[in-house]
Amino acid sequence: MSKKFITLLTDFGYEDHYIAVLKGIIYSICPEAFVVDITHSIPKFNTKVASCILNFAYKYFPRGTIHSVTVYPEVGTNMKALIMKTKNYVFVGPDNGVLSIAAEDDGIEKVYEITNKDYMRDDMSRTFHGRDIFAPVPAFLACGVKPEDMGVQVYDYHTISMEKSYVKNESITGEIIHVDSYGNVIMNIGKEQLDSLNVLDGEILEVHVGVIKYEIVFAETFSGISPGKLGLIIDSENLLELCVFKGSAAKMVSASIGDKIQLKKKS
Amino acid sequence: MSKKFITLLTDFGYEDHYIAVLKGIIYSICPEAFVVDITHSIPKFNTKVASCILNFAYKYFPRGTIHSVTVYPEVGTNMKALIMKTKNYVFVGPDNGVLSIAAEDDGIEKVYEITNKDYMRDDMSRTFHGRDIFAPVPAFLACGVKPEDMGVQVYDYHTISMEKSYVKNESITGEIIHVDSYGNVIMNIGKEQLDSLNVLDGEILEVHVGVIKYEIVFAETFSGISPGKLGLIIDSENLLELCVFKGSAAKMVSASIGDKIQLKKKS
Amino acid sequence: MSKKFITLLTDFGYEDHYIAVLKGIIYSICPEAFVVDITHSIPKFNTKVASCILNFAYKYFPRGTIHSVTVYPEVGTNMKALIMKTKNYVFVGPDNGVLSIAAEDDGIEKVYEITNKDYMRDDMSRTFHGRDIFAPVPAFLACGVKPEDMGVQVYDYHTISMEKSYVKNESITGEIIHVDSYGNVIMNIGKEQLDSLNVLDGEILEVHVGVIKYEIVFAETFSGISPGKLGLIIDSENLLELCVFKGSAAKMVSASIGDKIQLKKKS
Repeated sequence: MSKKFITLLTDFGYEDHYIAVLKGIIYSICPEAFVVDITHSIPKFNTKVASCILNFAYKYFPRGTIHSVTVYPEVGTNMKALIMKTKNYVFVGPDNGVLSIAAEDDGIEKVYEITNKDYMRDDMSRTFHGRDIFAPVPAFLACGVKPEDMGVQVYDYHTISMEKSYVKNESITGEIIHVDSYGNVIMNIGKEQLDSLNVLDGEILEVHVGVIKYEIVFAETFSGISPGKLGLIIDSENLLELCVFKGSAAKMVSASIGDKIQLKKKS
Repeated sequence: MSKKFITLLTDFGYEDHYIAVLKGIIYSICPEAFVVDITHSIPKFNTKVASCILNFAYKYFPRGTIHSVTVYPEVGTNMKALIMKTKNYVFVGPDNGVLSIAAEDDGIEKVYEITNKDYMRDDMSRTFHGRDIFAPVPAFLACGVKPEDMGVQVYDYHTISMEKSYVKNESITGEIIHVDSYGNVIMNIGKEQLDSLNVLDGEILEVHVGVIKYEIVFAETFSGISPGKLGLIIDSENLLELCVFKGSAAKMVSASIGDKIQLKKKS
Repeated sequence: MSKKFITLLTDFGYEDHYIAVLKGIIYSICPEAFVVDITHSIPKFNTKVASCILNFAYKYFPRGTIHSVTVYPEVGTNMKALIMKTKNYVFVGPDNGVLSIAAEDDGIEKVYEITNKDYMRDDMSRTFHGRDIFAPVPAFLACGVKPEDMGVQVYDYHTISMEKSYVKNESITGEIIHVDSYGNVIMNIGKEQLDSLNVLDGEILEVHVGVIKYEIVFAETFSGISPGKLGLIIDSENLLELCVFKGSAAKMVSASIGDKIQLKKKS
């Protein structure tokens, strides 16, 4: 018996029975499944945050892992439910784009609309498709049912587009894509863009967060940032991150997801 | 080796070592056990919320799952510890009624008071029966010890009674039994009661929440509710639910558990 | 296939992808591993709380369990990463003392500095050693790699010293070492110290919490404490605990970790 990994990513919170309902259904259908939580603390209905977290996490799991996402403000409408087969994984979730960034990152091979009611709950509700579809479908997949038996291949689906950052006139323009629980502010700006400006360890950058300008040191390690001061660092995903040693950068700059960032070397 | 499922439901919160202590004990006694959390965020000492969440969750787990509950304001008194064998499951917890709604829902077959100290911790404390009883007992059960070897059959036990809703003079009277983390307000009013009033999709109902009267649309799907407005919907448990599309109904009506609900068709 | 238990203790919080990243890496390296969370809600960067929680929890797990801790304000400095082999367990974490109280409690046998980059991530970051070291190392250990193949034995390492309480002139001096989510206030004062003062069930003690004096009853069980009143009780770890029946002692005395406690019999 080898483990069949299924991850769950939802906005259910940890207070209710909803997570347990999903796990109970999965283990009832496929006892060999092994469920791992990504998180259930996605801000309610926030597909953008969910798609970003999924993209940060999915790739660390064993090849073949089934990632099931229930962040679904559109529940009860006629939105499609999808299985996205990618190069190394299988993604299951609503067709609201929440799967798209991660699935595209891994390389989409085939997309199926889930239509076969044999693999949904008999007592199908209008309010809880996590229970009715996004638990049983990954469980059946884990136990060997093929995506093509669960639905029909489709070629149109929704995507959430991550804004692309760009370099122009020695200045980088991007945006905030995540604020983590430490208050680290993560941007869609990569190491290679910073390199293209020849930014060196210890240099001061002029950074606009929205309309406010800051002068912030770029450091290769946390130890290059003065205690209590803002710093810029390349994080473990090779993204630029605004941080405060042992503190919350998000509080110091009152930044939130989607805020525009513009930065250049101090002149 | 097949998995022996044990669920845990407590008011421990996630900040402390208490959940880990329970799991460590369970896996030390019975490595084949497989623990799934229902939730550990029950409001402290709130057996009513716990019994409701247990009732919502228990039935989704594989047949034979052992559900262990530690919500136990009476710890250190002489309260009995119980094993309730029901039609499809085994429930373990204190005799304060917290198991009763779920156990009765599944159909109680036999109830045992846990008396055999061989299956409790040697270093029995007066403050942490989760550790001393409600972890080892389900672990021993999972590994094959019979309830009758752990205690004596009893015929008296405490129950928490869920208020029954009723229909009278074309009006339904009930109460709020749960407010979930989305702010959905769940009532002890079932679909069949609503049907008995011939309430149709899109109809306006007069709803008293406590002393305040609202006029609220009943909708078959979320899409029948105007954005930002209150709506009534039948949820996945076939219960009537007050909700706001992408918002919190609990905030809009400041409802809480136990509040009386009265509703009828708008005249 | 027997389970190889790994516990995780971090200050990551539950909102982000960080916990999932660790689990994904562990299961990718060693699918036979079985990860159990101690908690991820350690106050950010608080190695003292983490070391206390680890000490409360570690001993309940099956012999041979690998306890991996990532509470690491010093990440990105040149701090060592350690494997501490103790009598019954293996601890993995940074050399900031966070492992020391638990490891010493169990009995340290050998300590290794992790130096072999074969057992770290190739894309080693400067910000996320949980991902780069404290996930892969326990996974490789769980799958049979020996500590001596991962690094070199060391004899110097940092410790966090738990203040010792003491009895002098019929008075006990100690400090607050933990405040749990119920608001129970746990002190580094043991049952045997209380016994040395011949404190009996129901006796009133004079307790200084910081500079404020309280008169508080010592009770053998919660039922000996009047509802809504402060009480002192011996908890499941044989430590003295300030508590309120169905309430929060921490709120009533505004106590926090590290506060000095002095107590004696009421004269």
